[in-house]
Amino acid sequence: MMKKMNESMLIDFYEFTMANGYFETSHKDEIVYFDLFFRKIPSNGGYAIMAGLESVIEYIQNFNFTDEDIDYLRSKNMFSDGFLDYLRNFRFRGDLYSVPEGTVIFPNEPIITVRANAVDAQLLETYLLLAINHQSLIATKASRIKHAAGDRAVIEMGARRAHGVSSANLGARAAYIGGADKTSNTIADRLFDVPATGTMAHSWVQMFDTEYEAFKAYAKLYPNAAIFLVDTYNTLKDGVPNAIKVIKEVLKPRGISFYAIRIDSGDLTYLAKKARKMLDDAGLEDCKIVASNALDEHLISALISQGAPIDMFGVGERLITAKSEPVFGGVYKLAAVEVNNHIEPKIKISDNPEKITTPHFKKLHRIYDKDTHKACADLLTVHDETIDNTKPLTIFDPTHTWKQRTFHNFYTVELLQPIFKEGKLVYDVPSLEVVRNYAKKQLDSLWEESKRFDFPHRYYVDLSNKLWTIKHDLINKYRFDD
Amino acid sequence: MMKKMNESMLIDFYEFTMANGYFETSHKDEIVYFDLFFRKIPSNGGYAIMAGLESVIEYIQNFNFTDEDIDYLRSKNMFSDGFLDYLRNFRFRGDLYSVPEGTVIFPNEPIITVRANAVDAQLLETYLLLAINHQSLIATKASRIKHAAGDRAVIEMGARRAHGVSSANLGARAAYIGGADKTSNTIADRLFDVPATGTMAHSWVQMFDTEYEAFKAYAKLYPNAAIFLVDTYNTLKDGVPNAIKVIKEVLKPRGISFYAIRIDSGDLTYLAKKARKMLDDAGLEDCKIVASNALDEHLISALISQGAPIDMFGVGERLITAKSEPVFGGVYKLAAVEVNNHIEPKIKISDNPEKITTPHFKKLHRIYDKDTHKACADLLTVHDETIDNTKPLTIFDPTHTWKQRTFHNFYTVELLQPIFKEGKLVYDVPSLEVVRNYAKKQLDSLWEESKRFDFPHRYYVDLSNKLWTIKHDLINKYRFDD
Repeated sequence: MMKKMNESMLIDFYEFTMANGYFETSHKDEIVYFDLFFRKIPSNGGYAIMAGLESVIEYIQNFNFTDEDIDYLRSKNMFSDGFLDYLRNFRFRGDLYSVPEGTVIFPNEPIITVRANAVDAQLLETYLLLAINHQSLIATKASRIKHAAGDRAVIEMGARRAHGVSSANLGARAAYIGGADKTSNTIADRLFDVPATGTMAHSWVQMFDTEYEAFKAYAKLYPNAAIFLVDTYNTLKDGVPNAIKVIKEVLKPRGISFYAIRIDSGDLTYLAKKARKMLDDAGLEDCKIVASNALDEHLISALISQGAPIDMFGVGERLITAKSEPVFGGVYKLAAVEVNNHIEPKIKISDNPEKITTPHFKKLHRIYDKDTHKACADLLTVHDETIDNTKPLTIFDPTHTWKQRTFHNFYTVELLQPIFKEGKLVYDVPSLEVVRNYAKKQLDSLWEESKRFDFPHRYYVDLSNKLWTIKHDLINKYRFDD
Repeated sequence: MMKKMNESMLIDFYEFTMANGYFETSHKDEIVYFDLFFRKIPSNGGYAIMAGLESVIEYIQNFNFTDEDIDYLRSKNMFSDGFLDYLRNFRFRGDLYSVPEGTVIFPNEPIITVRANAVDAQLLETYLLLAINHQSLIATKASRIKHAAGDRAVIEMGARRAHGVSSANLGARAAYIGGADKTSNTIADRLFDVPATGTMAHSWVQMFDTEYEAFKAYAKLYPNAAIFLVDTYNTLKDGVPNAIKVIKEVLKPRGISFYAIRIDSGDLTYLAKKARKMLDDAGLEDCKIVASNALDEHLISALISQGAPIDMFGVGERLITAKSEPVFGGVYKLAAVEVNNHIEPKIKISDNPEKITTPHFKKLHRIYDKDTHKACADLLTVHDETIDNTKPLTIFDPTHTWKQRTFHNFYTVELLQPIFKEGKLVYDVPSLEVVRNYAKKQLDSLWEESKRFDFPHRYYVDLSNKLWTIKHDLINKYRFDD
């Protein structure tokens, strides 16, 4: 049976072999810079939303190895006593910079930068990637679904199809950041204050002799939260009429004004239109219609364009697993090394141009239009560069350098915030509500062209002239070596 | 920041509203039967593998509500004091039957059956589905990947792309059940004894002035576990020659006989063939080749059919997320209710014939051929039926009833095992090694036709005549009501 778990041991084994290797060679105290970034937006979208920083902060604060962990590692006969002693007293002593949760992010820009000794920086890799990849994936998917739903509410209800406990719980939290309005998962309400909701399954209806009795019993118990699931037997012939009857008999006389039906199978547009007419004809114009069943951003868009009178969408497996593309491909790459207090940029070469990394300790600036407050482009610079917002700013495409653009009426915001300095948390962790509102503002700052599902506008992520030159000098250096 | 988590609160909120509703109406002490089953095999495969039972057992054994949980629920103003008292002293008091972990399973047969009072049975729904759906999904995907790899080893290395902590940890365990040989995830080794492995990332190579120095340092530190990642700069021009040099200088003189190179980018067939030739020409016929990079069952099959001389496959995101189809659609449906000590079957009707449930408390029998020991079909019967193995057994397709088949030389095995009786664990939980070996034998009992990736043979899951008649009488009853 399962032993008690120290999450610090959720580390790819090679992080230990490499860390011990740095410890045992001349690299032990070398200060290194790692960037966490991603190369491709899932489902060919136009943007992603960063989530997972709070998990990263908690992980780092609790990062430790128990005596049993040390004994386990010792039993591998691969690690030195010095290294194991270092782990026994381990706490993260480095710096960590991150964009805040809820920030709109794009490929090839650092979302997190770690500055630490080689051992500490390497040991963080697995969990940082796991947390940011998972939660950014779900926040991004949720924002697409909410974008399709517009003003209509989106309820995340995927717990039963989630990939384990944390997929359900942190997935519900990430979905809320991305724009979902509620969750079915009670623990997400308990832990993160994501509002939980839910009424009945088919089993409730089956437990009573008739559907009418099942609805009536529910309405009496929960007059203020009655959503009748109408498709257990026959939606239009039995379900909707029984709901109407119970609303009129039980809820109307009590002056209740919120009630709804839920349709969970069949053609949702057809059934919602028919049900709407039946409800309206019965004088229940205020009865809401909830729809669920394999929904995602594409089906929701289609239902709305067909005029389906649906007020709320319950979204399950396709949100909590990001079914259309369940992988957020964040990577963690060495960007620089400090040698005699001088930062030496490092590059990873590849025959595949997209896989060449951008070296150096960097800053990430977002350029906003002063009038519209829309985000126009992101600009990566070397850490010691500043941008003079009083002069025109010209940026250029890093591949097709003749593609240039000059901004006159702009301001810039630096996105990477210090989170840890020398191991100490220096960041005021915002509440989930604050994160969610920030994400909404971030999405508002994007042009609609970036939010299209098919062939969205590719947002510019450019390099300063100085950074571009450093990168190309390094590429040429390695190419000349060939 | 995150509060301490009681996993028992990972429950869809509607389980609470329904459970309280049963408690407050006449259904409180009613004994009910729920079946957990699925309708469709992911990725159109021919079989699935059950995993997740151990998590279910642990969940049930630890199922409880803290005072804080009760206070939280009370704050919703929806639940009765009696119900909250019941939760405060909650422990599962029902029976649970399950097929063992590692069993090959098929659509529309009960994998788990719960017999309990309505409240207890309803409260288990969310977690049971979550655990079985997730872990069966990954075990099934892993078995496909292992099937493609044949005798070659498969290393699960997806932690960084997993959907949170439990996706990584229990995913590694499920992958091992399905046939993966090792994992990159250290905690899976600590917790479940899934053997962990791993050597170096590109960052290791980048930390040294030259690739040669990086390999040499590694070989000296870990002479018995040296796998050189050869694609940081130029695989064939630098990486493989540097590995050969270090093997000859450091490992060969020490009498080491295990060493390998890993290729993580580029065309894996081309590079593996070229590298194999270089290694062989250098007299290193015993050097293994490991390949990784977006592998799954289809790419592995293609590489092997192209003659790529790869000895081990490292499989990341496409295994741990089951990327081709990341949803295992298990559901949990009411099958029967006890009325005056009589079991009354219950059905859920749907216009979609596949969504009509099979009612009653059932037994699940697997029919094996006595000579080949291959599984021929599964047969669902009512709980009180027995199969006489001494007489010919005729089964028929439940939809096309003229399709019949008679077995003469057969034996049957009952798959559903008692796990809990009146809340007490009565099952001897097997070790992970035992589960994995059982899964292997289960897979061996399938015809190859069921393991094909494209259009596999559809395995028969039929109903006994008695069960079929009960089901059709119930369908007709509800249809006549229309």
